[in-house]
Amino acid sequence: MIPIPQDFFFAVAAAGFKRPGRNDLAAILSGRPAVAAGVFTTNAFKAAPVLQCQEQLAAAPRARGLVVNSGQANACTGDEGRDNCRAGLKLAAKALGVKAQELLPASTGVIGAQLKMELWKEAMPALKKSLGQADVMDAARAIMTTDSFPKVAWRQVDLDGRTVTLLGLCKGAGMISPQMATMLSFLLCDADVETASWQELVAFCAEHSFNRVTVDGDTSTNDCLIGLANGASGAVVAGKEANAALRAAALEVCQSLAYKIVQDAEGGTKVARISVSGAASDRDAELAARAIGNSPLVKTALFGCDPNWGRIVAAVGRSGARFQADDLVLTLGGVGIFAKGRPAAGDLDGVLASVMQRQDIEIGVSLGRGKGAYTLLASDLTKKYVEINADYRT
Amino acid sequence: MIPIPQDFFFAVAAAGFKRPGRNDLAAILSGRPAVAAGVFTTNAFKAAPVLQCQEQLAAAPRARGLVVNSGQANACTGDEGRDNCRAGLKLAAKALGVKAQELLPASTGVIGAQLKMELWKEAMPALKKSLGQADVMDAARAIMTTDSFPKVAWRQVDLDGRTVTLLGLCKGAGMISPQMATMLSFLLCDADVETASWQELVAFCAEHSFNRVTVDGDTSTNDCLIGLANGASGAVVAGKEANAALRAAALEVCQSLAYKIVQDAEGGTKVARISVSGAASDRDAELAARAIGNSPLVKTALFGCDPNWGRIVAAVGRSGARFQADDLVLTLGGVGIFAKGRPAAGDLDGVLASVMQRQDIEIGVSLGRGKGAYTLLASDLTKKYVEINADYRT
Repeated sequence: MIPIPQDFFFAVAAAGFKRPGRNDLAAILSGRPAVAAGVFTTNAFKAAPVLQCQEQLAAAPRARGLVVNSGQANACTGDEGRDNCRAGLKLAAKALGVKAQELLPASTGVIGAQLKMELWKEAMPALKKSLGQADVMDAARAIMTTDSFPKVAWRQVDLDGRTVTLLGLCKGAGMISPQMATMLSFLLCDADVETASWQELVAFCAEHSFNRVTVDGDTSTNDCLIGLANGASGAVVAGKEANAALRAAALEVCQSLAYKIVQDAEGGTKVARISVSGAASDRDAELAARAIGNSPLVKTALFGCDPNWGRIVAAVGRSGARFQADDLVLTLGGVGIFAKGRPAAGDLDGVLASVMQRQDIEIGVSLGRGKGAYTLLASDLTKKYVEINADYRT
Repeated sequence: MIPIPQDFFFAVAAAGFKRPGRNDLAAILSGRPAVAAGVFTTNAFKAAPVLQCQEQLAAAPRARGLVVNSGQANACTGDEGRDNCRAGLKLAAKALGVKAQELLPASTGVIGAQLKMELWKEAMPALKKSLGQADVMDAARAIMTTDSFPKVAWRQVDLDGRTVTLLGLCKGAGMISPQMATMLSFLLCDADVETASWQELVAFCAEHSFNRVTVDGDTSTNDCLIGLANGASGAVVAGKEANAALRAAALEVCQSLAYKIVQDAEGGTKVARISVSGAASDRDAELAARAIGNSPLVKTALFGCDPNWGRIVAAVGRSGARFQADDLVLTLGGVGIFAKGRPAAGDLDGVLASVMQRQDIEIGVSLGRGKGAYTLLASDLTKKYVEINADYRT
């Protein structure tokens, strides 16, 4: 059973934004004001709900809840998009019995189309009725687009003599290469945390989880991780140790969600865990890891279970990371493949055949240069990915 | 009819490097020593033939010809690969009646496997016999891998009272994102050109043609553009004006070849000409163009004829190019789509339906920031690309 942080409630409704009959609007409400922090996309084209969240959080880092729709991203929609975003919040606030400025918005779906405000209005009675009836899985399903399963993760941690519950939910399967943030993701917590600590925790978790996955190298206009901590457990988190414990639990939740995003990559069949070490800097390690994880040639080889390791080496070679060609060591599934500028002796293809069949594949690269390291989760590239994205919109 | 630069000859043979019965070895020979210049991959893992060429050209910028094999890249093969490369040159030199150090090598195919030297030996009699019998199309076909058609281009230009012929040939369909060079490409010329001018011409042409195309963003370990000018036409090219005329003709040849590479992209159905202008710098314009041209989401939308322009805007937004979101103007096929942060009014999908059906699609982006500009040719991403690359090796 999924433990729900105390005094949080869910609501969903089927507004019909993209197609009728499925829930595509969700609200998450806290019974009391929560400390709120968010990390958002670095894309120059920030969606209207992203700009709205940033504005509200700058004014006051507190919120009562979230209103999230799928099917329409409300990105690249100009002033009309901002107005619609605010109007949607107003409608939802009235239905849920809170103030509009206490709700944070998020949207996901097709870029460039204006929100269908008539459908928002019509959905409000159902949203109101559902409050407290819907559960977290209903909400996680309502925010899906091309996702094939809802993504939820949780941890409990004892702090201040009480049990603190952390619950995260997110969506995302394509346009995934978060930078400083991710696709829609929400972290709920019932601890009483100081604003600055909570903001630091949310940023740290984004950087060490969602920011380290890639499906297609495309950073969305709507990425966000929003965290709400409402204090309902009665646990007061103060001091270095308690904050570290909470952060560790929150990071586990976020890493679990980030893994699920790659596992559910559009058309994906595999998750590659790319670990680069021995780099001149963490940034160099990241360059190498991203070159591998975003290479269409590496990704199609993963899909085809083809131990075509030369493509991995070539990707690192063009990555811009600093190293000597003779120093690179490559392992696949823990098996040494390439070192000192040449392939390992023996029947590599035979050994690798079973490695490549796995669903989770470890790619290890050591650059023999320094202490820089980076780990990236990446999906494979399949015919299904092309099929999904060739006719997503039309 | 294809005009051949004077005193150049071709030879081919079927060595059976990847599969039997097709020509996979080609030689191009000049009857006299030619000025030679090359531009090579910036990938940290330079293939053995790339290292060999660089060594020979550094020692003396002259050559009698080229020996090129397909099916085996001789990359990531260590010292044994370098030895094999030299041994192959020796065998070919003996068969063709020149010295080994007068021949420049190039290889393309699977990375990481050692050259099959027995097959090289066995192919020599056929290569020798074919010299002067084979034509340029035979050679262009012999160097193909996943290419679906041979790629040749030419121009003639009158200089110094004579007709100078420029002939280029290249191969390439995947692992295409040349940096300072390209897939295997060769430029033959019968003018008498100074070494420094010829080197400058070759580098300029690479930068303004092959370096501005992308199929999959993956830079090969074997990329090269090698130019040979043998002076056989009798035309002496000297002075600024004559060199500029020769360079203009050579650039046309290289741009024509580069277009053909994208046209023949693995599984590709479309060529997108991405023109970014108004950027803070040329580098910024390049960042934006490459973000669009390498975006799997943009490429699948092109394949699906889906006017999903939001993906183009989102790609520019994450590219790192400096601009204000409200200043970006996007056109597709010359039609204004997006400006001032919002889509153009009217039935965009209706207008774009016919644009997206074209085989050549113009994507225009203006950033309203400065004078920086860049044009990139990019292919689409198709199921066939995945199919080709999921089981290329096994």
